[in-house]
Amino acid sequence: MLNELTRQINSMKTRVLSPEFFMKEALKEAIKAYEKDEIPVGAVIVAQNQVIARAHNLTETLNDVTAHAEMQAFTAAANTLNAKYLIDCTLYVTLEPCIMCAGASFWTQISNIVYGAYDQKRGYSTVRHSLIHPKTKVVSGILEKECRQILQTYFKAKR
Amino acid sequence: MLNELTRQINSMKTRVLSPEFFMKEALKEAIKAYEKDEIPVGAVIVAQNQVIARAHNLTETLNDVTAHAEMQAFTAAANTLNAKYLIDCTLYVTLEPCIMCAGASFWTQISNIVYGAYDQKRGYSTVRHSLIHPKTKVVSGILEKECRQILQTYFKAKR
Repeated sequence: MLNELTRQINSMKTRVLSPEFFMKEALKEAIKAYEKDEIPVGAVIVAQNQVIARAHNLTETLNDVTAHAEMQAFTAAANTLNAKYLIDCTLYVTLEPCIMCAGASFWTQISNIVYGAYDQKRGYSTVRHSLIHPKTKVVSGILEKECRQILQTYFKAKR
Repeated sequence: MLNELTRQINSMKTRVLSPEFFMKEALKEAIKAYEKDEIPVGAVIVAQNQVIARAHNLTETLNDVTAHAEMQAFTAAANTLNAKYLIDCTLYVTLEPCIMCAGASFWTQISNIVYGAYDQKRGYSTVRHSLIHPKTKVVSGILEKECRQILQTYFKAKR
């Protein structure tokens, strides 16, 4: 089932540098997580149309419940930029950030967050939209179906 | 002023294994942060009356706004225990956790959180107490004065 989904994702046509283009990159990261038997969530951070950080969920591999894709991407992006704040950067993540990751995004002051699937159980927006920094713009639902499908496929295989 | 505060903290008498005893350990971590010109917040994680992780804020040193004392302590404690969840562990932290750290604590399912100073601006309880995992008990105000003082001293010196 992963193979089918991977084929589907890889064959998706997306306009170069569009939100879907970068979400597809985040989905590729989610596939890597899936292959490691991790909950398949992937993220990339983009600055000036370049991917400056890529990461996927590694909570099982690292035995660290805080090793979400976003947390690693934030740290990697700050490293790449050698800057504390992720001004003019965009986080693309396949699943709505949780409260921890929303809280982390606040500290980074990242300019944009784009997420795919909604997380009605643990998503930050279940609490309060204002967890996000006031300077951060949020877009949701990009490649929502694919972002949701990879999670559904993973959990279906688990049961 | 740090010297005076350090002397004061080190000379505090605390009953062995009391909450104040462990908060003093967290304060020692906060002093280490202060000495590195970091916002002075310290944390320890305790299991079976033993300190299994110690950490202090390193956001400037690591150029990583997510490098809060608690985040590092969670990761270190999971490493020490080789366990995913921090069941029967207690986090002692000198400042009320922020939303990111509260969100992280949720994922760890840590049994107890004890904090010293209140953070009325960025503390998790400004949002909702239920950010914390329902299994986690929270105690606040342990060595509150000292925990607050080290922060006040730091910021006073900055101005």
